[in-house]
Amino acid sequence: MSGFVSFVSSGPGDPELLTLRAVKRIEAADAVLYDDLSAGPILALARPEADLVGVGKRAGRPSPKQDHVSRLLVDYARTGAKVVRLKSGDAGLFGRLEEEIDALKAEGIGFEIVPGVASPLAAAAAAGIPLTRRLAARRVQFITGADVTGGLPGDLNWAALADPQATTVVFMGKRTLPALVERLAAHGLPAETPAILAESVGHPEESLTRGTLASLVALLAERAEAGKAPGLILYGPLAG
Amino acid sequence: MSGFVSFVSSGPGDPELLTLRAVKRIEAADAVLYDDLSAGPILALARPEADLVGVGKRAGRPSPKQDHVSRLLVDYARTGAKVVRLKSGDAGLFGRLEEEIDALKAEGIGFEIVPGVASPLAAAAAAGIPLTRRLAARRVQFITGADVTGGLPGDLNWAALADPQATTVVFMGKRTLPALVERLAAHGLPAETPAILAESVGHPEESLTRGTLASLVALLAERAEAGKAPGLILYGPLAG
Repeated sequence: MSGFVSFVSSGPGDPELLTLRAVKRIEAADAVLYDDLSAGPILALARPEADLVGVGKRAGRPSPKQDHVSRLLVDYARTGAKVVRLKSGDAGLFGRLEEEIDALKAEGIGFEIVPGVASPLAAAAAAGIPLTRRLAARRVQFITGADVTGGLPGDLNWAALADPQATTVVFMGKRTLPALVERLAAHGLPAETPAILAESVGHPEESLTRGTLASLVALLAERAEAGKAPGLILYGPLAG
Repeated sequence: MSGFVSFVSSGPGDPELLTLRAVKRIEAADAVLYDDLSAGPILALARPEADLVGVGKRAGRPSPKQDHVSRLLVDYARTGAKVVRLKSGDAGLFGRLEEEIDALKAEGIGFEIVPGVASPLAAAAAAGIPLTRRLAARRVQFITGADVTGGLPGDLNWAALADPQATTVVFMGKRTLPALVERLAAHGLPAETPAILAESVGHPEESLTRGTLASLVALLAERAEAGKAPGLILYGPLAG
């Protein structure tokens, strides 16, 4: 008896931004494994009998529990259960999906990925802007601003990131923004480049702050707790 | 009396990949303006009384009608209508949203953007792969492979696009793939880089072809009509 695992993208948090397929999978699930960030009203869609299992990973922190999550997925699936693995935003973007997929493949357990609304797209929509513009912003790129140690990754492609003709979205980049902006400036991208800080996108406490890379660095420095709410930083010509 | 325009992302085509909010907006619309690519079962959600207006833009072709579309949006909104402007994939990604937004702003007409499932995320999900991998694929980028003339854009950032540590998704790139691969090779990215051709993602005739940049160039050269079905090309370490 072999179950099935659906990696379900939950979108940025607002249940209205779930896809119809995501709703169907959650409603049919025997077990839902969720991270802190994707909890809340979305879990209310599950059947009362479904097991809801918080696996407690948080954005911006290394997870000591990855093996544990993979083990749980395998164990649930082996009971024949329909398992939903909820991932905030789109599961394929910085969702560390591969480790869990590898564990399922090793055990011969079937899986699917249900795509969803990626948080950068939700942030741009909330700001009322597109991410691309003919001629001026033809390339869109997403990176993480923090590696497993919490610092700025050392091997970023600066020619790509300092491109004034791209729209860049930095995940988990609030703490490392000063270092990022310094490196971007050294590679020719002015600190006066338009930028938006998008926090808690898709949640009731959603907040958008428009400014420049430099003004966002100053703003975050003034705060007692820079890193608490999950945040994205968008920069490029369209953020203006 | 002033109406309201919702730019609604319809996702890649499969109605199950609509968000709940997109469904609500389409169901409530007085008028739905759609491009060829987003037609079909999604329009069936509209009320029988709603005006369904095909505005006939197609991916990969310049649109002679952009002014006409903006004019229609404004005219409908001025009647007090709830107008839905359907955009395939995510509206903010290569959706030419800005020209239409500018027209609405000039007339003081309110609008919103409803984000959706971007086609690269749907393609990766259909292929069962994430777009990012810790250490090996930390950056994701999207570009168009065709400018208004249908040729490869002349001002692409080759350092960004030839990066072996990124996952790149090329929209509307089937016809220009040979030229793209040649330039990538000249900038150091081997033609043996893993690549996936994803066609008609989210439609019944969906097709995924795995190979390398070189093998996809060869495959497309063998076909009589390379450019008919809408297609994405993904390349990078995760496409293998």
